[in-house]
Amino acid sequence: MTLDTGLTVGGVGVGSDERLARIIWSLLTEPGPGAAQAWVQTHGALGALELLVAGELGQGSAAAGRLDGLDVASVLRGLARLRVRVLIPGDREWPVGLDDLDDPPHCLYVRGPADLATLRERGIALVGARAATPYGTTVARRMASDLCDRGYTVVSGAAYGIDAAAHEGALAVGGTTVAALACGLDRVYPAGHADLIGRIIGTGAVVSELPLGWAPYRQRFLLRNRLIAAATVGTVVVEAGPRSGSLNTANTADRVCRHVAMVPGPVTSQLSVGCHEWIRTRGASLVTDAADVLDLMAPLGEHAQEERRAPEVAEDAVEEFDATLWSAVPVRRGADLMTLAAASGLSATDTLAGLGRLVMSGLVERRDDRWRKVPAARRAPATVAG
Amino acid sequence: MTLDTGLTVGGVGVGSDERLARIIWSLLTEPGPGAAQAWVQTHGALGALELLVAGELGQGSAAAGRLDGLDVASVLRGLARLRVRVLIPGDREWPVGLDDLDDPPHCLYVRGPADLATLRERGIALVGARAATPYGTTVARRMASDLCDRGYTVVSGAAYGIDAAAHEGALAVGGTTVAALACGLDRVYPAGHADLIGRIIGTGAVVSELPLGWAPYRQRFLLRNRLIAAATVGTVVVEAGPRSGSLNTANTADRVCRHVAMVPGPVTSQLSVGCHEWIRTRGASLVTDAADVLDLMAPLGEHAQEERRAPEVAEDAVEEFDATLWSAVPVRRGADLMTLAAASGLSATDTLAGLGRLVMSGLVERRDDRWRKVPAARRAPATVAG
Repeated sequence: MTLDTGLTVGGVGVGSDERLARIIWSLLTEPGPGAAQAWVQTHGALGALELLVAGELGQGSAAAGRLDGLDVASVLRGLARLRVRVLIPGDREWPVGLDDLDDPPHCLYVRGPADLATLRERGIALVGARAATPYGTTVARRMASDLCDRGYTVVSGAAYGIDAAAHEGALAVGGTTVAALACGLDRVYPAGHADLIGRIIGTGAVVSELPLGWAPYRQRFLLRNRLIAAATVGTVVVEAGPRSGSLNTANTADRVCRHVAMVPGPVTSQLSVGCHEWIRTRGASLVTDAADVLDLMAPLGEHAQEERRAPEVAEDAVEEFDATLWSAVPVRRGADLMTLAAASGLSATDTLAGLGRLVMSGLVERRDDRWRKVPAARRAPATVAG
Repeated sequence: MTLDTGLTVGGVGVGSDERLARIIWSLLTEPGPGAAQAWVQTHGALGALELLVAGELGQGSAAAGRLDGLDVASVLRGLARLRVRVLIPGDREWPVGLDDLDDPPHCLYVRGPADLATLRERGIALVGARAATPYGTTVARRMASDLCDRGYTVVSGAAYGIDAAAHEGALAVGGTTVAALACGLDRVYPAGHADLIGRIIGTGAVVSELPLGWAPYRQRFLLRNRLIAAATVGTVVVEAGPRSGSLNTANTADRVCRHVAMVPGPVTSQLSVGCHEWIRTRGASLVTDAADVLDLMAPLGEHAQEERRAPEVAEDAVEEFDATLWSAVPVRRGADLMTLAAASGLSATDTLAGLGRLVMSGLVERRDDRWRKVPAARRAPATVAG
């Protein structure tokens, strides 16, 4: 769109500046669904702004009401002072996942060096309860560290509990982490996370669709969650009570067809109820660590999870036919042929043949006419049975 | 089958007694897959026995070898002395689920008053690790109590750990519990469970396919597990390491198309690894309590689980349109109209209308020209928004 509106808003000429028009829209309305969304999607940010100023859109609307008090020049000075960059759809760095939302942000305010263009490929949302347990924060921190070690970016909401643990885990290994805030980027919320948010800005990024100065309200947290869900490859919830806001993030992730994964926990913990319920009834995937997450979310072929299994032990190589006999052979003192035949229910001939195979496998040893198990420590590693 | 074999085995005339023929087969061979299974399935227990005695079946086999030493009369006296009843396929009390096995038991030895005919409808297997954690035993005990309270029978293996907790939970509420043993019913294994097994015999039942006197071997535990899995509606595993025997039970349950459910636990616990892996990769259902189990396993319509949700709170009744305004209304000191309009981003008209709706809902109160939230304690219960 290269419409030159010849328009002046809040003391600044908008001209054909789509970015400026989107900044102005972010100043005029709450994010999320609403009339402004429809206008911008129908007419473009510039076109809709022109119509709004001309009084041709919802004269009594909140957006129109706010036009008057606007000081756009002051807003732009504030953004420059904090070195906030403003991304709009179509920018190279724009997180393309946001385009899958019904109500994408007008623009995204960003502080910090992280390149948001990679989020749709390598960003994983790690969220959960604020009132997390030590179990939850331990798991979140570890998972975040491991995901970063594999080159992924951890995206969360800078809240207390799981969010903080996720950011900390990423930072601890020098990884990249992105925090989406429910307030303007000049604000620190929660106040206790001033240091954390500062460190995230130092090596990762904080993002918001809200202009500087805007305060965090409940509704804004819910709207912020949709950015975390849509920008990333998938959402992992580490702990969530039945009504946790992180399940709202999972809901959006599900709606825009992202992976949704839940970390289980003790069934006795209220803070795992939400996770278990989503696995049980909503088809969320169960994940226990970063390997499970990547098994689910990594691009096909990039992460080939090895099958988990306990270390191979010699007993596994015992053929079914010899398993009963093997069970009957004593560990310390040996037993003679007739005793073993009786105990295993095999004929003497079959018992002798079976003992021969077990001796060949290095599992059983014969002394004089008695057989006993070879202690595990002395056994050779199991070979694949033919 | 009413074949009269005119046969005498181990000093006792078999005649046309199918039950006796099956008892004899149980004395001649290990349970599970093998030649004897095939013979009995092909020729019937009586017919196969006749052929065996005539030397027309595997002359050098273990079964033939055992024929000689057999004292059937003594075996029958032992069964009578311990009041063991012997069930065979076709009996009213025969657990019909066992017929789904490739290698059903020749017969089932039973002690205790429980009626095994109900297991395929109301028996639920509850199994898990021997080296269980306090978390696991707490969950198993509680789940067993709750299942029994709902009229279900808890089936397990009388082992240490989860098995014992399951039996104990059932006994604690006067419920019915059945233990399948990997040894003859005159034996107590593990020895520490003499009291537990005695109490199970008192009100429930212990069962085995092994004759009196037979000792527990590793292979026999695995074979025992298939009885637990096949006899019941489904198997619940409470804790399982990556190589737990209870996963062997789950495997059989899966193979004979029973429900397989796993209780999750902390991802940091080795004893939940097997459960999580089955949910993650084998499609096992996640269950957190008895209600979840019945949701999965109860006959259709018998157990309608209510949807779990946190208690309804008044805020839920706030329509989306008013949610932002609701967030902006202060809790203690009220705010005036213009302050609320600015904070919520709504026009003065919309703000006033919204405040009116919130006052009507009992969520907000007006004093003079200021609005504030009604403390939750004073609010009326939420009504369903129209």
